[in-house]
Amino acid sequence: MSKGFTTKETILKTAFELTSKFGLESLSIGELAKSVGMSKSGLFSHFKSKEKLQLMVMDYAAENFTLKVVKPALTKGRGIDRIEAMMENWVKWSGTYLPGGCPFLSAIVEFDDRPGAVRDHIKVLQGTMVETFARSVEIAKEESQIKSSASSEQLAYELYSNMIGFHIYNRLLKDKNAKVKFQNLYKSILEKVQV
Amino acid sequence: MSKGFTTKETILKTAFELTSKFGLESLSIGELAKSVGMSKSGLFSHFKSKEKLQLMVMDYAAENFTLKVVKPALTKGRGIDRIEAMMENWVKWSGTYLPGGCPFLSAIVEFDDRPGAVRDHIKVLQGTMVETFARSVEIAKEESQIKSSASSEQLAYELYSNMIGFHIYNRLLKDKNAKVKFQNLYKSILEKVQV
Repeated sequence: MSKGFTTKETILKTAFELTSKFGLESLSIGELAKSVGMSKSGLFSHFKSKEKLQLMVMDYAAENFTLKVVKPALTKGRGIDRIEAMMENWVKWSGTYLPGGCPFLSAIVEFDDRPGAVRDHIKVLQGTMVETFARSVEIAKEESQIKSSASSEQLAYELYSNMIGFHIYNRLLKDKNAKVKFQNLYKSILEKVQV
Repeated sequence: MSKGFTTKETILKTAFELTSKFGLESLSIGELAKSVGMSKSGLFSHFKSKEKLQLMVMDYAAENFTLKVVKPALTKGRGIDRIEAMMENWVKWSGTYLPGGCPFLSAIVEFDDRPGAVRDHIKVLQGTMVETFARSVEIAKEESQIKSSASSEQLAYELYSNMIGFHIYNRLLKDKNAKVKFQNLYKSILEKVQV
């Protein structure tokens, strides 16, 4: 691993943590340079522009999501076990690993009405996540665990809504039963389509 | 209505629209002064501090929510008709009236990890909204439309999660079937508890 590569990794990890705390738009190159102990010009040489940095932080967050939420679930059996593992991993990722809340949710809220490269990129990444859920439902259908008549797109939407709802109940409302509510809704989402 | 009061209304309406577009933290007194055609010092005389302005914008948003979503639903019959009307009104409010997305969602995401007066205030307002849903479920139980064994807190969580999920699918993912997905989940949330 070259030094340049390691430095970039460190910068992105720090930028990711700052984004999780303060949002993507507030991510200032000056603040980031201070946090990693670099000069502003040194940091610019890595990212060229604030927009480029924002795009790369989103990619970093997506890779992190894959690493912490999706990949470990793939060791589980095909079908519902895998969906359940993803949900469990997501609850852990969202509740403990992320210092300041889901960086995607911040980015979505900030950029949903600002057309441009960052918005397009968030849309693609978030769309991919939703497709991952839909695909996992498809697999459960192939395994005859979920009714073939069930819409995997609908179920992906329901799993996603439950995740976001939990995130807000847990982080903002500090609801002590957020996880129980999340699990109850998860159970009823699946019950109605399970074979 | 005194001139001072009218001016304050105009400023808050503009501040609300800016918040919906750019978030609560980016709400700058300078930008706001420009938008309403006032001097910065004139604006300060109304709000004293940025924090005070942020608190009042959140109150304005909450009143707007009550006016557009809750109040019209109260003309419907007690129980499920009222819950359904609130959901319908919310879809309209979220999809058309708000220029840049739900100001609460922006505020939640921005402030969930920043302790202070603004965060506390958002928590209270959002908690009140969730309680309004829980109360409407209680009424439906009193009217024997929803099983008495159902948890109104759980149902409020489910209705809320569905709303946030729809908002993101609709605004960010531009999913053409967002409303159908929202309605399907709404239907299945109620079906399992209806008498």
